[in-house]
Amino acid sequence: MATKAKIAILGASGYTGADAVRLAARHPHVEITALTANTHAGKSMADVFPHFFMLDLPKLVTWESVDWSGLDAVFCGLPHGTTQEITAAVLKANPKIKILDMSADFRLRDGATYAEWYGHEHQAPELQKEAVYGLTELYRDDITKARLVACPGCYPTATLLALVPVAKAGLIHADDIIVDAKSGVTGAGRGLKQNTLFSEAGEGLSPYSIGKHRHAPEIEQEIGVAVGGKVTINFTPHLIPMARGELCTSYVKLNGATADDLRQALADAYKDEPFVHVAPKGVVPQTQNVRGSNYVQIGVFPDRIPGRAIIISTLDNLVKGSAGQALQNMNLVLGFPETMGLEQIALFP
Amino acid sequence: MATKAKIAILGASGYTGADAVRLAARHPHVEITALTANTHAGKSMADVFPHFFMLDLPKLVTWESVDWSGLDAVFCGLPHGTTQEITAAVLKANPKIKILDMSADFRLRDGATYAEWYGHEHQAPELQKEAVYGLTELYRDDITKARLVACPGCYPTATLLALVPVAKAGLIHADDIIVDAKSGVTGAGRGLKQNTLFSEAGEGLSPYSIGKHRHAPEIEQEIGVAVGGKVTINFTPHLIPMARGELCTSYVKLNGATADDLRQALADAYKDEPFVHVAPKGVVPQTQNVRGSNYVQIGVFPDRIPGRAIIISTLDNLVKGSAGQALQNMNLVLGFPETMGLEQIALFP
Amino acid sequence: MATKAKIAILGASGYTGADAVRLAARHPHVEITALTANTHAGKSMADVFPHFFMLDLPKLVTWESVDWSGLDAVFCGLPHGTTQEITAAVLKANPKIKILDMSADFRLRDGATYAEWYGHEHQAPELQKEAVYGLTELYRDDITKARLVACPGCYPTATLLALVPVAKAGLIHADDIIVDAKSGVTGAGRGLKQNTLFSEAGEGLSPYSIGKHRHAPEIEQEIGVAVGGKVTINFTPHLIPMARGELCTSYVKLNGATADDLRQALADAYKDEPFVHVAPKGVVPQTQNVRGSNYVQIGVFPDRIPGRAIIISTLDNLVKGSAGQALQNMNLVLGFPETMGLEQIALFP
Amino acid sequence: MATKAKIAILGASGYTGADAVRLAARHPHVEITALTANTHAGKSMADVFPHFFMLDLPKLVTWESVDWSGLDAVFCGLPHGTTQEITAAVLKANPKIKILDMSADFRLRDGATYAEWYGHEHQAPELQKEAVYGLTELYRDDITKARLVACPGCYPTATLLALVPVAKAGLIHADDIIVDAKSGVTGAGRGLKQNTLFSEAGEGLSPYSIGKHRHAPEIEQEIGVAVGGKVTINFTPHLIPMARGELCTSYVKLNGATADDLRQALADAYKDEPFVHVAPKGVVPQTQNVRGSNYVQIGVFPDRIPGRAIIISTLDNLVKGSAGQALQNMNLVLGFPETMGLEQIALFP
Repeated sequence: MATKAKIAILGASGYTGADAVRLAARHPHVEITALTANTHAGKSMADVFPHFFMLDLPKLVTWESVDWSGLDAVFCGLPHGTTQEITAAVLKANPKIKILDMSADFRLRDGATYAEWYGHEHQAPELQKEAVYGLTELYRDDITKARLVACPGCYPTATLLALVPVAKAGLIHADDIIVDAKSGVTGAGRGLKQNTLFSEAGEGLSPYSIGKHRHAPEIEQEIGVAVGGKVTINFTPHLIPMARGELCTSYVKLNGATADDLRQALADAYKDEPFVHVAPKGVVPQTQNVRGSNYVQIGVFPDRIPGRAIIISTLDNLVKGSAGQALQNMNLVLGFPETMGLEQIALFP
Repeated sequence: MATKAKIAILGASGYTGADAVRLAARHPHVEITALTANTHAGKSMADVFPHFFMLDLPKLVTWESVDWSGLDAVFCGLPHGTTQEITAAVLKANPKIKILDMSADFRLRDGATYAEWYGHEHQAPELQKEAVYGLTELYRDDITKARLVACPGCYPTATLLALVPVAKAGLIHADDIIVDAKSGVTGAGRGLKQNTLFSEAGEGLSPYSIGKHRHAPEIEQEIGVAVGGKVTINFTPHLIPMARGELCTSYVKLNGATADDLRQALADAYKDEPFVHVAPKGVVPQTQNVRGSNYVQIGVFPDRIPGRAIIISTLDNLVKGSAGQALQNMNLVLGFPETMGLEQIALFP
Repeated sequence: MATKAKIAILGASGYTGADAVRLAARHPHVEITALTANTHAGKSMADVFPHFFMLDLPKLVTWESVDWSGLDAVFCGLPHGTTQEITAAVLKANPKIKILDMSADFRLRDGATYAEWYGHEHQAPELQKEAVYGLTELYRDDITKARLVACPGCYPTATLLALVPVAKAGLIHADDIIVDAKSGVTGAGRGLKQNTLFSEAGEGLSPYSIGKHRHAPEIEQEIGVAVGGKVTINFTPHLIPMARGELCTSYVKLNGATADDLRQALADAYKDEPFVHVAPKGVVPQTQNVRGSNYVQIGVFPDRIPGRAIIISTLDNLVKGSAGQALQNMNLVLGFPETMGLEQIALFP
Repeated sequence: MATKAKIAILGASGYTGADAVRLAARHPHVEITALTANTHAGKSMADVFPHFFMLDLPKLVTWESVDWSGLDAVFCGLPHGTTQEITAAVLKANPKIKILDMSADFRLRDGATYAEWYGHEHQAPELQKEAVYGLTELYRDDITKARLVACPGCYPTATLLALVPVAKAGLIHADDIIVDAKSGVTGAGRGLKQNTLFSEAGEGLSPYSIGKHRHAPEIEQEIGVAVGGKVTINFTPHLIPMARGELCTSYVKLNGATADDLRQALADAYKDEPFVHVAPKGVVPQTQNVRGSNYVQIGVFPDRIPGRAIIISTLDNLVKGSAGQALQNMNLVLGFPETMGLEQIALFP
């Protein structure tokens, strides 16, 4: 390829923005042309993320000062709520740009559900209609043709990859799904909060947002699509003293099937997928196996309670759960090989 | 009191043994007379646990060399399987000794269940019949009169305190209980295992013993007692990158009750208990709140799925989950105030 | 004793304040009468520190609203700079109160040095003259008679206990002392800072305040007292991914002495001290040995470079490094046994 | 390039072996042909390192069963002591193979020093004479022509890159160098040891091997080469509760120079180096900046003691400190671009 695709990363001072930089900086066909972080405009990336000392990156600027005309794609790692306005502005300035949105702004298709969970009306309902849900393995064809990709949340990615194929195949009861989710602390972002201080989050474990986490409606939406109806799920997240990684333990009621049937159905569904691996019987997924990588590992186990099974799925919340999946989708929308720049093996130990 | 009770701690080179030493050494009415650790016999405790440098403790000896005649109580922190033989020998030498067993050897009342889960016939069935299950809050009167107290496992303590009152009251369905359990790494003991190395267990999270953990039959036994029947539960433990602490998230199906009803039933059940605290509505238990202490914290939350609720319970696996509860029981069997030597507040941060 | 001493703890929403509460709440002769935290006034302690759920504590109030008349002692865990004014006001309201100041405000005896390091003139120079430096083992007699005790910083406590006896005895060169210091993250306090987020401080290690840390002049002041002159030391702190604990590795140039001589001099100096233990030859101090306790462990080792030695000292920065030492001093000023309420053994593992 | 170089990795069940696999598996011009681990022969790599689930790797075999004939290079990640014999056997079987040794066996040029520190005579003194010390930045030309490269220890790499240029230039006194070194727990390897259990090493900090660490003579050897004489240094390592990463704080006595002079000398020495970055004045190196990467970051700071300075250097002990530097050297001996397969950016957070 003669020229590189030009990209901008908005919200580059946050963790998902930074991981997009980490991956894009080594992507052979990408050139990072602009980095924005409105509260840090004027600084170098190494000022806000010193581990980028070895890279020659553009300075941080405000998003308003970016020239969108020559850009091929934009990663949005902005806080929820602000993305709608900015995306609209970007696409108005250059309607050909591909948007890889890592925020939650375009994930919920139903306006009322969005308003209920986010506390305000959606600000860009037309764009919401256009947006494609960016769970690559489920919506690959649509994503390839999309202009605006709403990359899923980290928990929905882990949960839906584990549940959609078996729900769709009718192997489980969609009205009795319990998802006990565990996440590393980066999932809470780089904002300053007392409960994510090292001294508070370290050496301890806390459930949070019980019954109220905004990833629940996203999971329900897609399980609903899979089974053709409205579903309500239990989704209970826990904050774990590790930086990266996420593991969802899903407790499901079987519809006559066995744990082996579920494992087989998942293995069939993902047999050609480069990033989703179904573990052989008896192999237990763990976050260590995917840390820093774009891979997902899924395992299925029988429950002691007859007629139930346990599905365990794990990923790195900043990679397949955010920036990695966004880059995977960028590869699709820009016509690059899907795995390009994403084949890093987990960093273990 | 004129004289102090004389105690021995068997298995003092393990974590539960060490925590028994930590607590007993500061108990005002106790004198540690013997410490055993057969593979370390001849060493000082500070050789195997340097944080005891400030204590004047007896040297480690083999259990065979202990003079049982003058002892009032014995803590057993021995590996599963060896305790049956040793307990029998101790009680033969001095039938008046009180045994606080922290191993699993006398927890399962049913011989067949024991054989199924531990792979061999019970070696002391008569003592098994005599043993009292040492969950203080449930069996206080029996413990007070007991000679052999089978202190519960850490997970059963956390789970049963959360579930027994509501199961007994018929507020939940006993055949649909899912316990997603999370434990710090000390739960795996001090034995050398690859998966508990810092480099392996740190910064990561793994489920383990899925459907096969030996605490499951113990929980089932006591839920069964509560509801008067045989029950099968889901119990799925996860290894968390922290040293101490345990949190069980129990997903229950309601029998017409609400989450508020469950919370009230638990608050009523524990209103006079010194170590079990039911959190007010909305307050989320976390392991940080109980680290290093003998306290248990329990919270109840509604589930998004109608007719279900979530009960969260947390404790320190080495204290209320082991050595602390053993000392609490020792206070009962020796006639000391139940809370004596056990009122340490959680070490946070 | 008929009545308990009444104390107030100012700055109870910070880590040192909280550790003072943890210790004082279990002190047999103390009653916590007032707790202040101006930004949290009106809340309960369990709102800001949920691990106090089991205690019946007074509500948080502003310091201005405290009635000082009936108080015996006040712990100040306030930010540097504010303490001077507040202490003056407290002592004006009740000149008989004993002040245990855990801030840095009264540690430096020289006004010019204070102004140089803290950027402003001292606001209570008369009180500064009255204040006694609260390193218990060095100034016990003065502390016993003091009204205002300026408890030392955590690093100075660890460093001075290791160095003062050997410097005073002329065993080392006071002009060639290099202190490589390592601290857990609680040392940075509970304020929200990016570098103390779990995701930033975890799994990594950073030097900080190189050549500029405010504990340097405090160490220099007291080494200067020991040798009778002005000294300049190297003090280089590092942030370590643990919550509690501090370890100082001091590299010293010997004045004809050997490492064994240093160890003996320290052992002699501390032979009757309840909280300072000099490790036998070959035993290496580690923070794990003192976590959550008021103990200090010191070890001495020969250097490969002839004529040099290494002194290693460790303590818990929130206990002997702050609230524990303050309580130890409170015991002195109120006439209680010095070790009362402070004999907790390290929480290990 | 038409064909890929064929490599074997010996000791693939250890951490340095695994990191060599992680890097080599994604190197565009390398094919992993054999993996050995004698105690795990017959297993797949995913059995011993489950994070390799996505790779198609050869099964583990014993080193004796490898066919050396078609191999281009061999990485040795074997325990110290065994490498001498195995290397001799490999080179006898195929004298054209390039050996990248990650053990300590060929690092010390002086037989007597080797015998003193390792407790036995060197078993392959002829190969020792042939071996080139594999600190790439110091011995690039020799390495390029070498058959047997003795890759340095992790600590020597960090320390020597910081000190050799300034020692060589006479800017510091070589007889007064104090290196306070801090390492993550992977530095202790995957062998089962009590002090590297999560429950023991976590949340705590311990110095170790004080004055006795085997990396000391290696550092002394190379500083000696730089200054043309025999030197003795202080080298004091500390175990830090993190998996990866190493930071050395070197305290040096200046020879008339300033800290700025040292920084400039280092910047000049490394201005064309791809992996060694000298931080600008005021920027503090931290392990987080290099985690999982082959980069080294060095910073220089003035000391409060006149005439002294502080040099801080950091790297990932398993990458630039071991497998990464070995791969960098492999690129040299096989004629690939030096940075190929090694440009991963640090994984932060």
